[in-house]
Formats: sequence, structure tokens, C-alpha cells
Amino acid sequence: MEKYCFGVDVGGTSIKIGLFTEFGKLLQTEQIPTDKTENGKNIIEHIANKIKEIISQNHLEPEQMMGVGIGLPGPVTDEGVVLGCVNLGWQTMTMDSLSEKLYGTKIYPLNDANAATLGEMWQGGGIIDGKMCKNIAFVTLGTGVGGGIVAGGHLLYGANGGAGEIGHFPVNSHETECCTCGKKGCLEQYCSATGAVRIGKKILASYGIEAGDITAKDIFDRAKAGQKEYLEIVDTFGRYLAKGCAYIASATNPEIIVIGGGVSMAGHIIIEAVNKYFKTYAFGPCSNVKFVFAKLGNDSGMYGGAYTVIEKHLN
Amino acid sequence: MEKYCFGVDVGGTSIKIGLFTEFGKLLQTEQIPTDKTENGKNIIEHIANKIKEIISQNHLEPEQMMGVGIGLPGPVTDEGVVLGCVNLGWQTMTMDSLSEKLYGTKIYPLNDANAATLGEMWQGGGIIDGKMCKNIAFVTLGTGVGGGIVAGGHLLYGANGGAGEIGHFPVNSHETECCTCGKKGCLEQYCSATGAVRIGKKILASYGIEAGDITAKDIFDRAKAGQKEYLEIVDTFGRYLAKGCAYIASATNPEIIVIGGGVSMAGHIIIEAVNKYFKTYAFGPCSNVKFVFAKLGNDSGMYGGAYTVIEKHLN
Repeated sequence: MEKYCFGVDVGGTSIKIGLFTEFGKLLQTEQIPTDKTENGKNIIEHIANKIKEIISQNHLEPEQMMGVGIGLPGPVTDEGVVLGCVNLGWQTMTMDSLSEKLYGTKIYPLNDANAATLGEMWQGGGIIDGKMCKNIAFVTLGTGVGGGIVAGGHLLYGANGGAGEIGHFPVNSHETECCTCGKKGCLEQYCSATGAVRIGKKILASYGIEAGDITAKDIFDRAKAGQKEYLEIVDTFGRYLAKGCAYIASATNPEIIVIGGGVSMAGHIIIEAVNKYFKTYAFGPCSNVKFVFAKLGNDSGMYGGAYTVIEKHLN
Repeated sequence: MEKYCFGVDVGGTSIKIGLFTEFGKLLQTEQIPTDKTENGKNIIEHIANKIKEIISQNHLEPEQMMGVGIGLPGPVTDEGVVLGCVNLGWQTMTMDSLSEKLYGTKIYPLNDANAATLGEMWQGGGIIDGKMCKNIAFVTLGTGVGGGIVAGGHLLYGANGGAGEIGHFPVNSHETECCTCGKKGCLEQYCSATGAVRIGKKILASYGIEAGDITAKDIFDRAKAGQKEYLEIVDTFGRYLAKGCAYIASATNPEIIVIGGGVSMAGHIIIEAVNKYFKTYAFGPCSNVKFVFAKLGNDSGMYGGAYTVIEKHLN
């Protein structure tokens, strides 16, 4: 009997739902909007309904369902407790209600960045020479900076689901502006899309350039065109990113650091910038790290959800 | 039939060998000098002979032996490959020869700081309210700064056995002096015994005080006596230690950070100093960390070796 599982990625705007075979092949993807009204109380039902629809369309029997792995925008413990999702309006909860609506199917919740990490490890940037690397870190450079860490094949959750929160590594003790977290000098203040614009405007101002509504993409595009003020911004960006990666290197000694998120779309200039400074900051014995780009784009969370289900069945 | 195992801790000066029951009770401890002549080629034989002697004294049968866990002063991979031990004169090797000399007994090598981490988790500072915490970090403040990390009950090894090398986190981008590793501004340059003396001398010089042959112990003793220049040194020490612990907190989100090593003998002043700054540097959701002292002293590595054997047998 063929077996199947679902990988779900719940974002602030939309929810992606993927049907996978037990061998990890993605068969079908559906997307529904995230209904954040009434503290997101309808989200679970919407997911359940869409999954039931896909099951029905594919004529699957209940006993063919291995489970549902679901990436959520908040901390999740290794015991499956969701410690709130601010963006969805959720408080602390478990996924029991989703399981009930799906006739007792096993649900595996995890943090969205952690799900993306597993997805990339399994079928994305974490594959080197056809082999899945068991010691990797994922750094996502988007509106904020997030991440996830896998060591010895185990995803790190930490005591409160907070492992891999690398966006808030302190990287500059002289920063005067506050991060969204309330601290000063977090990695996210330099290497997120907004962070790149923030430091970009400062550097441009030092050259007397009025930056206007510049975006992170503009900065990287102009740097690639060789404009020196923009190259300086990218250099600063790369220096902080390298420093952040050096902390990961000493803490968990990954073989690969996968870089994803919207900012990473700038391409090779990002990896050049991080490689320029990485060995300056990283401890020698831990500095043999290969930087690669994420390959699954917005599907990584869905893949990671499916991987969690399949991996639990294998063990 | 009662079962037994050995925990061994190989240091640069001496080797400690402990006989443990399968339930973790330490029955007997022996110590032999570390023979570093001829690139440490006799060490394995000396350990094997001492273990055979203990087995014979206790009238144990071969089938009662669960194995030997051995902490070594160098990086060890999760597959048991010892990637050299500079202080012993060893190159890359496995523990096959020790196994052979002990009639095929299973040998589990691990890094000494990692062994100490497991020992403290199992029967030391990692026990809170009688329960073993599965998310801990161990920071050892000795001649250098070392450490180990356990996440979700799994010891982190990393790609080259380098996980937990927190002594080389970059913590000060303005440092002008080099660390032993060749970088500048490593945690070890501030929070080891030599690091505390180094920053102590600088601070004392700024007050026109000739420090002479001051030791780390002198610094903490005088701070405890309320001498303001020494309190300033301890404050600086605590600030860097807090910053280092903040990186661990964001990376792996431990519940407990156990502080050990010779410098930690200064006592509560160390934990006060780190607590003063920890929440300034640590990301809020990861900052609920309890700092405690190591409890097993120089026996922690031996305990960790025994734990590894027992834990592998349980799984």
C-alpha cells in the first residue's frame, strides 16, 4: 500500500499545502489565504478542509496517511507545543484540534524557519554530491533574519523552541538604534532587507547621497554594476553576516550554511561578501564551511513538514 | 548479571579511570600519569593495563563489561574518529587498538569538554529538581575557555568534532592582541584564567597600579573584598562571558548553562557578573537561562565517558 503525507507551511498571508509520497516526491501543491480574523481561529479548519479535499481528489484511504508536518510562524517545542504565533493571533496551543478534524492523523508542528531548514537539508541546498549533510545551518535573509540548525541529523529545538534564532546575535556593540526585539546591534539590523536599507542609507548619507525609497534589491543591483558606495554597503552587510555565521560555526560546527530568503535572490554577490570575512571571524577548526543558496524557495517549509513526518516513521 | 563500564578522562598530565555500575554509581577511581614521550604512543597501553587491573581486582567477567567511554583533549567526530590530540602528540586515529587490548570491548571516544558536559548533565549541575535537563551548555573557564552543548538530549559533535568551541566566539572587534588561535577578540582572551589576568593588568594600569604576578584568583579575591579596580575587572569579565553565553542561547536555546573550570572556583561572584549582563545581550525568548556551577570538578569527564556507554546501551 502506497503511503502519503502532507507538508504545510503557514505564513502570515497564505498557507501552502503539499501532498508528498512516502519517498518525498511532491505530487500536488495548493495554496489558501491565511484568515487572521478572530485571532486566527479559522486557520486550523481551513487547513483541515483543504487537506480533506486533496485526499478526496486523490482517492486516498485513511490508512495511507502517514501524517501532516506543519511549519508555523512561532516557537514550537520538541514536544509539539506551539508557544504562540503573534502574526496569526494564536496563543500557546497544541495541534490536537487539527488532528481531530483529520480523523486522528498524527500532526507534527514545527517552527517555520526550522521546517525550511529541514526541507533544504533534505532536498535543497543541503545536498552535496547527492548526499544529505547532517550538520547544516539555514540562514534566511528576509524582512527579518531567521534560521535553523541541524546537528548530527537532529533539528535543534532548544528549551523553548528558540534554537536557531540567529537574527538576534549581538554583532555590533556600538549600535545606537534599537532592533524590533528591543536590543541594540542584532544581526537582523544589518542583514535583513530592512537592515540592508538601514545601513545603506547611512553609508550613502556619508557620501552625501540622498537614498530616497531605495530597496535592498537596488543596493545589490548597483553594487553588481560596480558603484563603489553600494559595494561598501554590501561589504558591511557581508562582514556582519560572516560574523553571525562564525558564531554558528563555533557553536554547532556545520559543514554547510544554506542562505535563503528574499535578500539572497541578489545571488553570488552575497556569498562572495560572506566568504570575504568568514575566516576572519570563524575559529579555524570550525571554519571549513561551504556557503550555498537555498534551492526550494517558498516551498522549503512544505518540504520540511513532509520530511518530519517521513523521518519519524523511519525511526 | 550486574554490568559495569569505565569512564576515562585523558589529560595532559594525568589520566583518570573510573569504574561505574550500569546505574551510574562510581565504584573506584584510579589515576595514572600521562606518558607523552614518543608522541604519546604508550598512552593506550597504559590505559588498557590499568583497566585490566581494575577488572581483575573486582573479579569482573568479560561479559559484564558494557564498554569504555573516553574523553580526549582533541576533536572527536560522532563516528568516533579522533582528529588528533596536539597535547598528547597524537595524529588522527581511532580507538581500535584500545578495543583490541581489552578483548574487543566497545570504546566510545569523545572530546574532553564534551565528556565533561555529559557528566555534568547526568550527575552534576544539569540536574534541576532531581530531573536531568536535556538542553544544556557547559562553559569551562580554565587556562582556556572551552565548552560543550547538549540539545534535546543529543551531544553536539558537528562536522569535524568542533561543536561547542565557544572560547573562540568573537566578542570584541577592537581587540589588538592575538588569541592563541590567531584571531583577535576571542572570548578566551577575556574569560580564561590568563584572559582575566590580561584584562586585569590593563585595567589596573589605567589606575596606575603595578599588577606584578597577579593571578585570576587574586583578582576575584580582591573584588570580593570590595576593591573597586578589581570589581571593574570582574565586571568586564562578566560582560564578555554574558555576551558569549548569549550566542549559545540564540543558537541552541539551553535551559541551563553550567559553568566550570578553575576560574569558576571564585564562586558566586562569577554568576552575579554574568547575570548582570546576560539579558542585555541575549534574545528575549531565549534568555530564560539558569546559570549554575559544575558539581563534579575534575571527575566530570570520567562521568561523561561512563554516561556515553550507558546511554548507547539504553538506545
